[in-house]
Amino acid sequence: VKKLSDIGERQIIKKISEIITPGNEIIGIGDDCAVLELDSENYFLITTDMINKKTHILDKMTPFQIGWFSVAINLSDIASMGGKPLGVVLSLGLPDSLNIDFVEELMKGADKCATIYKTSIVGGDTKKNPSITISGTAFGRVEKVKILRRKGAKPGDVIAVTGNLGKSAAGWLSYKKKNYDDRILSGLFEPIPRVLEGIKLSDEKIVSCCMDVSDGLSSSLYQLKEVNNLGFEIYKDKLPISKKLVDIIDSDIDIFDYILHYGGDYELLFTLSEKNVDRARAVLEGIECNMSVIGRVTKNDNIVFFDGKSRNILENRGFEHFKGNIC
Amino acid sequence: VKKLSDIGERQIIKKISEIITPGNEIIGIGDDCAVLELDSENYFLITTDMINKKTHILDKMTPFQIGWFSVAINLSDIASMGGKPLGVVLSLGLPDSLNIDFVEELMKGADKCATIYKTSIVGGDTKKNPSITISGTAFGRVEKVKILRRKGAKPGDVIAVTGNLGKSAAGWLSYKKKNYDDRILSGLFEPIPRVLEGIKLSDEKIVSCCMDVSDGLSSSLYQLKEVNNLGFEIYKDKLPISKKLVDIIDSDIDIFDYILHYGGDYELLFTLSEKNVDRARAVLEGIECNMSVIGRVTKNDNIVFFDGKSRNILENRGFEHFKGNIC
Repeated sequence: VKKLSDIGERQIIKKISEIITPGNEIIGIGDDCAVLELDSENYFLITTDMINKKTHILDKMTPFQIGWFSVAINLSDIASMGGKPLGVVLSLGLPDSLNIDFVEELMKGADKCATIYKTSIVGGDTKKNPSITISGTAFGRVEKVKILRRKGAKPGDVIAVTGNLGKSAAGWLSYKKKNYDDRILSGLFEPIPRVLEGIKLSDEKIVSCCMDVSDGLSSSLYQLKEVNNLGFEIYKDKLPISKKLVDIIDSDIDIFDYILHYGGDYELLFTLSEKNVDRARAVLEGIECNMSVIGRVTKNDNIVFFDGKSRNILENRGFEHFKGNIC
Repeated sequence: VKKLSDIGERQIIKKISEIITPGNEIIGIGDDCAVLELDSENYFLITTDMINKKTHILDKMTPFQIGWFSVAINLSDIASMGGKPLGVVLSLGLPDSLNIDFVEELMKGADKCATIYKTSIVGGDTKKNPSITISGTAFGRVEKVKILRRKGAKPGDVIAVTGNLGKSAAGWLSYKKKNYDDRILSGLFEPIPRVLEGIKLSDEKIVSCCMDVSDGLSSSLYQLKEVNNLGFEIYKDKLPISKKLVDIIDSDIDIFDYILHYGGDYELLFTLSEKNVDRARAVLEGIECNMSVIGRVTKNDNIVFFDGKSRNILENRGFEHFKGNIC
């Protein structure tokens, strides 16, 4: 009998999805959200994410940031499918030795993240737990014709990403080096879910597939490759690198190890036809979000990394729960 | 600064509800589910509940029962408001030393509970956690004119309960005595959410207020008293006692300590006009659920327990998380 640590999160999810009896859901396990029919024109989206003191919450994270984080990572899944958030519920598992101040600050962070993205914490649960554990569930709505899915990339499409990569890695390095620069730590502790960006992109109906890169760029690309039965070619010189990471990384470290494989950047990774790139860019820049075309979709069954001279197969070594992280 | 163990779950929730910015929700924290408008005729219901190895999961509970339990307690909240379940998402926090068999059995239990109540597990999350922690979120729909709420009891109404009380206490006693009778343990480990009962009662539009008695009868009555600004008179001889509890309880123990104060029976507690009692009973008996009128709503600001001879104030000593249980 195999232990979870031998199998890893994605195999566990696969086994679970074989057990579950399908119901009315349009999309069950396997996309960023589960999708159900809301009415003749709209889909209902729902997603849940759990974090835990031991695995996600570093000791420099403030309670406010823990609350923010719990909501942000769930809103990012709604954003990945082009949804408008309708609400969030939050279950708090807390040691009874914790001070009430901690819970109040945590809820202020959660509330702040929800209200900024025009939604609210509508309910929750609080229970005793030996280790701080927070489970958030976000739900939303998207017009059927506007839904963004993981499946849908076409050969000839380009692949693009919002914002910059490496903010989260920069925060991790700041933490590891004990320099604790709040501006840099915030890249890891206060991720920005691309809610408005997801809505704007979905409104244009020009995106052929989309997900967030929370598991890391290489891992996300491999997940898209699998679901689309296609390949990608990624251009090294087009990858948008966070200035925060440049500022903090040691000169002897290859920054692309972090840009390609480190998770925690809640940016949107999406494909679209080349002719729509200018339109997508204009829409995103209109809400102050930069966009980078980082490669193209290919008919090959592989992911190639082109460094300007040679093409090599991109390694798939992003973060996977139960198996751990490479960085 | 106060610790959570000094304050207790209900005070924590009160503090949290003061922090949260209200959004579009019709009902936020304080009822069994959060309620949002779905469309002109329907409300959307959502609820979340977290359980943990240390506080909820006894060592005789099978993984199948853990999965069942996680779904059942959430469906009970949907049932309390008269809702039809639309789906469930489940976040699993699991030690990485756990066997995959455990997770598969757990998901079979969760799936079984969902499908029996005509819904499904639509999504979830799995994360490493030092202590098994499961957070379920159930969502559903109810016609606006049929919603059951905690608020709405009227003086002169009677108060009733579905099924029998003490099944869960019987399971606990079986466990404590190490007699491990599966039939009796199931009362604690495999609670039956009153989903169809909630729907049938809501269809009749005769219930003035409703909640489940998961926190124990006395605690539930005190919660209804507070939200309705009314009182109750409860008749000792009308309380429906589970045969399982009678079978297992020691003769020197007062069975009413368990019937009144022990939680974990996921029965519906509801008020209605006396003239509608026969109708409610007929509807429930039609789906093989017995119903007992256990008292009446009064204008007094107290809860009185009438034992046939004298009337005494009912103690409020049900289970409260972070504070512990009396039994």
